[in-house]
Formats: sequence, structure tokens, C-alpha cells
Amino acid sequence: MNLSQVLERAKALDAADPLAGFRHRFAAPDEECIYLDGNSLGKMPVRAMALTMDTLDQWATQMVGGWKNGWYEAPLRLGDKLAPLIGAQPGEVAMSDSTTVNLHKLAGAALRARPGRTRVVTDDLNFPSDVLALQSVVEGVGGELVVVRSRDGMTVPEDDLAAAVDERTALVSLSHTAFKSGFVHDLKRVTQVAHQAGALMLWDLSHSVGAVHVDLGAAGADLAVGCTYKYLSGGPGAPAFLYVRAELQASLDNPVAGWFGQAHPFAFSLEPEPAAGIRRFLVGTPPILSLLGIEAGLDIVLEAGAQALRTKSMLQTEFLIELADQFLVPIGFTVASPRDATVRGSHVSLAHPHALAIDRALIAEHQVIPDFRTPDNVRFGLAPLTTSFDEIARAVEATRSVVETRSFEAYEGAVEGVT
Amino acid sequence: MNLSQVLERAKALDAADPLAGFRHRFAAPDEECIYLDGNSLGKMPVRAMALTMDTLDQWATQMVGGWKNGWYEAPLRLGDKLAPLIGAQPGEVAMSDSTTVNLHKLAGAALRARPGRTRVVTDDLNFPSDVLALQSVVEGVGGELVVVRSRDGMTVPEDDLAAAVDERTALVSLSHTAFKSGFVHDLKRVTQVAHQAGALMLWDLSHSVGAVHVDLGAAGADLAVGCTYKYLSGGPGAPAFLYVRAELQASLDNPVAGWFGQAHPFAFSLEPEPAAGIRRFLVGTPPILSLLGIEAGLDIVLEAGAQALRTKSMLQTEFLIELADQFLVPIGFTVASPRDATVRGSHVSLAHPHALAIDRALIAEHQVIPDFRTPDNVRFGLAPLTTSFDEIARAVEATRSVVETRSFEAYEGAVEGVT
Repeated sequence: MNLSQVLERAKALDAADPLAGFRHRFAAPDEECIYLDGNSLGKMPVRAMALTMDTLDQWATQMVGGWKNGWYEAPLRLGDKLAPLIGAQPGEVAMSDSTTVNLHKLAGAALRARPGRTRVVTDDLNFPSDVLALQSVVEGVGGELVVVRSRDGMTVPEDDLAAAVDERTALVSLSHTAFKSGFVHDLKRVTQVAHQAGALMLWDLSHSVGAVHVDLGAAGADLAVGCTYKYLSGGPGAPAFLYVRAELQASLDNPVAGWFGQAHPFAFSLEPEPAAGIRRFLVGTPPILSLLGIEAGLDIVLEAGAQALRTKSMLQTEFLIELADQFLVPIGFTVASPRDATVRGSHVSLAHPHALAIDRALIAEHQVIPDFRTPDNVRFGLAPLTTSFDEIARAVEATRSVVETRSFEAYEGAVEGVT
Repeated sequence: MNLSQVLERAKALDAADPLAGFRHRFAAPDEECIYLDGNSLGKMPVRAMALTMDTLDQWATQMVGGWKNGWYEAPLRLGDKLAPLIGAQPGEVAMSDSTTVNLHKLAGAALRARPGRTRVVTDDLNFPSDVLALQSVVEGVGGELVVVRSRDGMTVPEDDLAAAVDERTALVSLSHTAFKSGFVHDLKRVTQVAHQAGALMLWDLSHSVGAVHVDLGAAGADLAVGCTYKYLSGGPGAPAFLYVRAELQASLDNPVAGWFGQAHPFAFSLEPEPAAGIRRFLVGTPPILSLLGIEAGLDIVLEAGAQALRTKSMLQTEFLIELADQFLVPIGFTVASPRDATVRGSHVSLAHPHALAIDRALIAEHQVIPDFRTPDNVRFGLAPLTTSFDEIARAVEATRSVVETRSFEAYEGAVEGVT
């Protein structure tokens, strides 16, 4: 294929895309800007503006009475809304705190629920904040974190996990979709590995929800956490979610207890009485502006449908890898994500020795916004609600141009920042 | 004084009030509405609208690039702004998580810093969520929470605390201003009680900051947390703050570790390397809309000045108690807050057997919004930035009317809710 053939094919794929229209529900700074970092921070749904203004209006006009507009119930109401996206039932999901704080709660709860077992098993594909949180939790109980190493830097097979999980293991905790390579663990089989050893299973769904199929119920998963500001477009740093399987809720204690997790918070009792159900995993008063803002993106994701999003995402990552093989591998890139779409999330990492400079050149010179992940990955996040096939084609062409013209050299020595 | 004399006196006090003009920087639903619950949720600064729209605009137009507008630095930048209000230095304060999560971090850190000591001492005037959090933290280490009981239901003298603190005590943790009675602990003397026993001191400043003088530095306090949505008008559930005395920072570990507390979060290393300074007490990605919104109210409080706010607050609570003595005590109310203004915060609780019904009648029939605190307190929160003396006078008159006409009887059986 030459460039014009590629662009033509992209155009045809966009024309056949049943989700193409959703793109216009999101703010776009510029039609020329190609945003491929929706897996870091999803684009703003246009409705987020009106929704947030409405929340501010409630505060302005009703003050503390604003709480009567469902603010108090919002963590569970929005959790119930999110539930079908991850194969959960009503009452199994709540919005609360950050993903990392939620990991502390659920990993801590798991360790208390498995007395005598002090090991937690994870892998080195997991998001570093998760590994830090797990390390911090096991330290608190004098336990040990076992980090299974990836052999190829990209995947971790179940057998390698199974070899690390035994009767000392209280918990297995993994990112369902790896933040760098995009590798997707088998939710069901890995959960079975944990259960066979009598351990609990905790999934971080941050890089999955809204793009990769997740069925916690079918997998028999125990616990999960995840972020709402990536494919769900919940807004920068919006509260995270947590999942606890219904049958487990009564037997788990929240080790980060607070009044929003109490049965009767307004009784102001000093005697703890944890709420029944998922509410017990809430802690303090939630940040209402950021919390209620989640609904704008969540509603769009629900309307599009998890299956349709996964189907499009797989088509898009396939298309990107096909173009990368033709145009980018010959000029020094390596595909650093799995080639099997069934074990790949919605982002594709392309490794290159000059990855950081290439990332910066793409942003500055081509309005193409991928992400850089150390040490050598240019990460292309394809958000099925907002990314078009045409953008993928143009992003590959821009990448080729940056390398062939060596325009990236002007950006050598760039420093990694907050993205 | 008869009613018209009272109103005249209130008018004169308002005319002489140097802070009177600040009232108009806040949204008001209705000039007739008398809001006396700013110690639960402060009124919305008018500027919060524009500030939040600006944040949304950054998200919409810059997407992940929005982080370059200082989002990443905001927890520490806003902490530095708040610092002078609590007698802290730059680098000692950060905005992060909820007050309760911050208590978990700092109480957990204190217990780790005092190995061999497993007791935490608090009192029963402390906010229940704090007591729950402390209970939860000591349980995690097999420790014990000692709750010193108030003898009069209103105050706890230092001597009673001193009797409970000994060489087994790792931490003393108290609310500086009690949420119900408004009693204010002596910051310096109680801190000395803790230090004399070799324990650390952690203050919850939620009901103080923005209305009651706080000088953590002069008191030699070690740790503090507090809420931004009361007198600071930071917005519903806005992130809380935490304080760690500079000299202590390097020696304390954050037991709720996460990537925002790391020295190099974007190195994505699996080896923990906590940041130097106050940053190590951050955890996950903060809720940006709610976080940045804090600045609108904070700027107004700083402009008004902590001393001027305390002066007005003391005048106002004095005025309220004087009127209560004349008009409300004779019809069955008891002043349930200290009569000495130097040990009283900015809210006054008036106890009455029908308190909940009276609270509801005041709201429904008089547009007077106090708060109810179980079992029998009508709590009048006087926010010195927004409450006028005229409002105090009219609120007392409305309360008198509700009781004398027995109009509250229509509200018997009301249920406590979220306020």
C-alpha cells in the first residue's frame, strides 16, 4: 500500500464504523489534532460542561442542601451504572478515592481475610503505583510481595504466575491490561490460578474498562479497582471505582475505615458499625465536582456498548500494527505489544531507541499526541469512542516522517513529564 | 433588649465590621436565606464558577497536556498557600485525598515512627470519622485506642488527657475545635502533653481553619489534617490538607504509598523511592476539578486574614450567646458550647429536647439553615466571611418563634440526613 491507498482504506473503515458518530460528543481542540493518549486522560465529553455547571449551581443555591440531590448516593449509583461494563451486579461497585487508595483498601482487606498467609503475588507488567501500594500493604503486616518477572518484557503467561502462587499466598493482584505493552491477562484462568491456591484475586481494570471486554462475574473474580479518567473520560483525576464480589462483602473489613463506610454516618457514633454491602469500602466525603462529572463519559460508553467498543478497538489496533509493520518496522521500530489481538488492549507500544524525542516531535510538529513510556516506548492509545481510522493512518505517516526526516533530533534530551 | 433594639444593635455591628464586604464574593440563593451551616459546607465563592470552567476548558482543549498547567504541582502549591493560615511554613502542607484518608496516612506513619508504642490517645469530642480511622489504624498494628471521655459533654481539660498519655502512647490525635460543642483545645499545651510522654501530636483542624487561630509552628505540633470545604469554602468534598512538620518529613513513611508520593513518578520504577518533603504523603492522581476549585475560597480567606476572621468570629459567637441567654434559654434551650470565647470555635450549639424538629422548622418556615447534631443540638455555624450580625439576630428571633408558637411540632419524627 502506498500512502494514498492507506488513507483510502482508513476512510472506508471509518465509513463502516458504527461508532463513528460518538466522536462528536467530545470536545475537540482542533480537527487536525490527533489525540492518541485517551488511555492516559480521555477527552472531555461536551456534556461534562453542563453537568459540572449544574453541580456548581446546586452548591451555590442550595449549599449544604445540595447533598439532597443525590450527592450522598452518587458513589453507589454511579457504581451501579458502571457495573455492566465489567460484568458486575448492582451493589458490587462503588466510586471512591483514587485507584491506589482503593488498592490499599482491598489488598489490606484480603490480607486480613487470609490470616496466616502473608504473601501477595503480582507481576512486573503491573502499573508501578499498584506495585508500590501492594508493597506498602504487605510491609504493614510484615508480609512479602512476590513480583513475577516477564520473560519477554511484554507478557506473563499463567504458568509463570501459577509457579509463584502457593499456600502462603493471600492475594494475587494484577493489571488486567498492562499499561506499557497492552498485554491482557486471561481474567478467568488467572483468577482460577489464585483460587486453586486458596488466594483471593484482585484486578486493576484501569486500562481495560471502556475498551477491553471484562466479565468479573463470569471469571469469579473477587476484587477489582480501576480508573475512570481513561477510556471512560471521567475527567482528570476523577474518583476511581472498586468492586467487591457480593458474597465476599460481609466477610471483608475495610482497613481504611471512615464515616462514609458506616451504616449510620449521621448518628455520629464512636462505635464502628460498617455498612452492609459495598458502601463499607467508602471512606471520607467524596470530591463531588469530580465525582458527579464521571457520569457524562460513563453514559456515552454505556450507550456505545462494551462489546461494540471492544470490536472496534481490536480492528483499530490490528490496523495500526499492520501499518506499523509496513512503514515503521523497516525504519527501526519494534512492535512492543502482543500481536494476538485477543490478548492485547486498546493501546499499542512501538519501541524505538529515540522514542522520547520522537514522541515530542510528533506533538510539536504534527499535532499527533501519543505518549512516551520509559525507556523506549511510543505508546499509541486508541480510544474507540474518539479515535478514527483516518487518524491512525495519519499518525503512522507522521511517525514515519519524523524518523525519515530525522526531525526528532531537535528533541533529543527532552525530559519525561506528566502525561 | 427588645427585638427592635436587638436588630438595631446588629445593624451597628455590621456597619462597624471590616469584613462585611466579603459576603458579596459568595453566591447567595436569596437575601432572605440565613445560612448558618458554613461549618458543614461553606458557601460557593462566585469565582469558583469561572475557575472550574477554566479547568474544564484546559481539559477540553489540551487534554492530557492540561497537566502542564500546574495540575501536577497544585497539591503542594495550594498547600503552600494555605500554610500561613495554620502557622505552617512552605513545604509543610499538601492538599490530598479526604481528611479521613490523611488521618490513616499520618496516624499510620506515627505508629511506625514509635516502635514499641502501640497506643493512640484521642477524646470523645473528636469527629467520629476520626475516631473510626484511628481505631482502624491501631487495629492494623494490634494496638489500642484510648478514648478520653468528656466529663461535661462539652470540654476535655489537658489534665484528663495527660492522665491518659504515657510511655505506651505513640500518638495523641484530637480535633482542635470539637464538631459538636465547639470547644477548642489549647494547641500548645496539649502538644506539650504529647511530647512530654515522647508521643507525636496530630491535630484535625477541620472546624478551625479559616475561623479559629491556629499556629502549628508555635505549638511545635507534629502532624495535622483538615478539611477545605467548611470555612475555606473549597467546594463539596474538596480534597483535604495534611501537614507534617518539616524536620519530621524525612523520618516518616507514608503507609498509604502511591505514585504521586514518589521522587520520580514518571520513571515508572517498581523500586519505591519516596519523594523528599511533603510530597511523599501524596498517593494517587488527585481529582483535579475539585482540587483546583479550592483556590477560589482560599484566596478570599487569605485576603481577609486569619486574625481578622478570628476577631469577628469571637464577636459573633459572643453576640449569639448573649441573645440566646436572653431569648432562648428561658424557653428551654441550654448553651452547649463553652462560654469562654478563647476556648470556643465559630459555631455554637444550643441544646433542646426537640432540637431536630426545631432545626427542620427553622429551615422549612424561616429559611434559617442551622444544623442538627445528635442527640439534641441545634448547631449555629457562624462563618465570619459570610454571616452578618443581622442574620444572627434574625436567626435567634426565628428560633424563639418556632418554639413559642410550637410550630416545630409539625416536624417531630423527622429523620437525620446528610448535612
